[in-house]
Amino acid sequence: MTLVVQKYGGTSVGSAERIKAVAQRLIARKTNGDQLVVVVSAMGDTTDDLVELAAQMTDRPEAREMDLLLSTGEIVSSTLLSMALKHEGHPAVALSGAQAGIGTDTRYGRARILKVDPARVHRELDAGNIVIVAGFQGITEEMELTTLGRGGSDTTAVALAAALKARCEIYTDVEGIYTADPRICPDAQKLAEISYEEMLELATWGARVMHNRAVELASLYNVPIYVASSFVEAPGTLIHGGPMMEQSNKVMGIASDTDVARITIRGVPDQPGIAATIFEPLGENAISVDTIVQNASVERLTDMTFTVSRSDLAKAMDLVRPLAEKIGAPEAMADTHLAKVSIVGAGMTSATGYAGRMFKTLFDAGINIELITTSEIRITCLIDEKDIPTAVRALHKAFQVEQAA
Amino acid sequence: MTLVVQKYGGTSVGSAERIKAVAQRLIARKTNGDQLVVVVSAMGDTTDDLVELAAQMTDRPEAREMDLLLSTGEIVSSTLLSMALKHEGHPAVALSGAQAGIGTDTRYGRARILKVDPARVHRELDAGNIVIVAGFQGITEEMELTTLGRGGSDTTAVALAAALKARCEIYTDVEGIYTADPRICPDAQKLAEISYEEMLELATWGARVMHNRAVELASLYNVPIYVASSFVEAPGTLIHGGPMMEQSNKVMGIASDTDVARITIRGVPDQPGIAATIFEPLGENAISVDTIVQNASVERLTDMTFTVSRSDLAKAMDLVRPLAEKIGAPEAMADTHLAKVSIVGAGMTSATGYAGRMFKTLFDAGINIELITTSEIRITCLIDEKDIPTAVRALHKAFQVEQAA
Repeated sequence: MTLVVQKYGGTSVGSAERIKAVAQRLIARKTNGDQLVVVVSAMGDTTDDLVELAAQMTDRPEAREMDLLLSTGEIVSSTLLSMALKHEGHPAVALSGAQAGIGTDTRYGRARILKVDPARVHRELDAGNIVIVAGFQGITEEMELTTLGRGGSDTTAVALAAALKARCEIYTDVEGIYTADPRICPDAQKLAEISYEEMLELATWGARVMHNRAVELASLYNVPIYVASSFVEAPGTLIHGGPMMEQSNKVMGIASDTDVARITIRGVPDQPGIAATIFEPLGENAISVDTIVQNASVERLTDMTFTVSRSDLAKAMDLVRPLAEKIGAPEAMADTHLAKVSIVGAGMTSATGYAGRMFKTLFDAGINIELITTSEIRITCLIDEKDIPTAVRALHKAFQVEQAA
Repeated sequence: MTLVVQKYGGTSVGSAERIKAVAQRLIARKTNGDQLVVVVSAMGDTTDDLVELAAQMTDRPEAREMDLLLSTGEIVSSTLLSMALKHEGHPAVALSGAQAGIGTDTRYGRARILKVDPARVHRELDAGNIVIVAGFQGITEEMELTTLGRGGSDTTAVALAAALKARCEIYTDVEGIYTADPRICPDAQKLAEISYEEMLELATWGARVMHNRAVELASLYNVPIYVASSFVEAPGTLIHGGPMMEQSNKVMGIASDTDVARITIRGVPDQPGIAATIFEPLGENAISVDTIVQNASVERLTDMTFTVSRSDLAKAMDLVRPLAEKIGAPEAMADTHLAKVSIVGAGMTSATGYAGRMFKTLFDAGINIELITTSEIRITCLIDEKDIPTAVRALHKAFQVEQAA
């Protein structure tokens, strides 16, 4: 008897019929002898509908109340799935994040899981139940409901798998992790396995199958994650930390991300502590800054450029404008026409020449590079958003990624 | 500074516009110097929509999961109202029933409030907030979410008012308590005041403005309740336990109720303990039995007739059929064509002739009486549902209730 934590995303539980289909999958698996804990997202557009309701009240909803509001979506889907299972004669129980023991900090909208108390889940499993858990949410010590932010249900699933020492399976609307976004690159291949690190670079930079927080958590607790489709029966991708069957000395995938906004502050006085003055308030407001570039100083003035996600741009500019004024910088500008393309591969650490080949490929495709950043296993170029499809296809071909799987 | 608990029903918060209108009412009241705790129901059809979703999963949803599902409706409306207030610059906070300290037993779907811990509400009031509380729900000691059943938000409001020693105001889509249902009886008059007892008889037997549980609770803790419209500015009705300004020696109102189903078990053996055999299982399944009539025994066999609410009929018959078989009764029948009409008035206790006048009035109107029951301050006749409008109007006229206000 294997204990498995499964997660089904919003599309997978998007309608009454889809929920019943998931129930049938669970029953088949349970009948095979597995114990199941099932984390669900909100049905389809529920979260968007709730956000829209809030928008009718105010343009700046408070994060605490937004969390209380949004957490209802996953409670609805989890209770419905439990009802569908019981209707088929299979014992089940729906638990809110709080009831499932998901304890978080108070960073509303982006709460971090502090601890998982699996006692209730164990009790329900022992009673023979399929345990359905509302994803994306938790509770603070002060009994405040929180949500975990983007990819929250994935994070719930991984955290539960770690606490229960269970296998973790993420079911979604794609069949696994691909060497590039299949919508952009028809040659993209499904990977049988990928390392946490490679997956992190893919997720952070745009592969979007799983959020990086969930992968980081899996890496930390060494929880292997199996990603597969909830719609078709096809082998998925195993994300893990063990040795790769074939540690390929090459590029594993091409990532692209259009959720990029660039902010530039012109004429920043080149003084010690200026960077902290700008970036500390952004961090305190939970705005992730991806890339920071500071130009060489001319007459003790410099330009500071950095990127944030587009959803954070308005909030970031609200903070940056008064900061720029305070430090005497004459101008703070934002633009949203750029996007990121990356080559990712653990094999790149032990080889050379990847950066040069990447720049040459983009140059040959007539694409201008606005900014470059690198990590151990990734090289990223900021380019015009409209060039992304061309860049992904050219890089996929140049690095022969279609043979990586 | 007066501490006031207000309650707004589903129609009063049925749309974004209505929620904003309620916010304006609250702001005006707060500006007048009052401290406000506001209990809200779910928006308009939300609860019906959730019930319909559950019905797509199963025809017999489990009560525990139904409560978890339904409790989301009031959380949505409470967060939206809080957002609307903050948008207008007024500090507010939305609390779930659990956060507001509403502790209940585990009778899912009809939970009773065991205790109210007002610490959090006090803290939020002290911080200057208008406190919005999700009505209709609570939490058990085992962290299970419960709902309070019909009239649950009224009960939440009265319980909070009792715990906070606050004034209680119920805002709804009617202007107050009338001498009869105004939709049936055009001559119906709004009452300036009514006693708990009279209100209880009206509510139980069909006035539907407030649920009897809320009135019982108010009576128990001597919390006066002011019922008025959330749509128009007009004086409402004060429900209280103090001496009436004018204790009228007459009928105060005419109640009618079409939510009546009659169950008859034919050929019940006339043995000691038979009644308990039938009614204990109904009670254990939280089915309220209103009226019980047992015919005179013929050859040691009797007919047992009783009424339940129509929503309980299917569940009741599921219990009654096997019980009838078990005790050897040949037949259990149900019908739903009857309804109740009552005359209600505390003044009736000290006077005579009311019953006779009632029966005569119905007889003169050509209405057949199927069953009669009485309480200290009420006389009720079971008649054909189609005769209700005629009966209400005839009784209202006969007892000159239009002069009672």
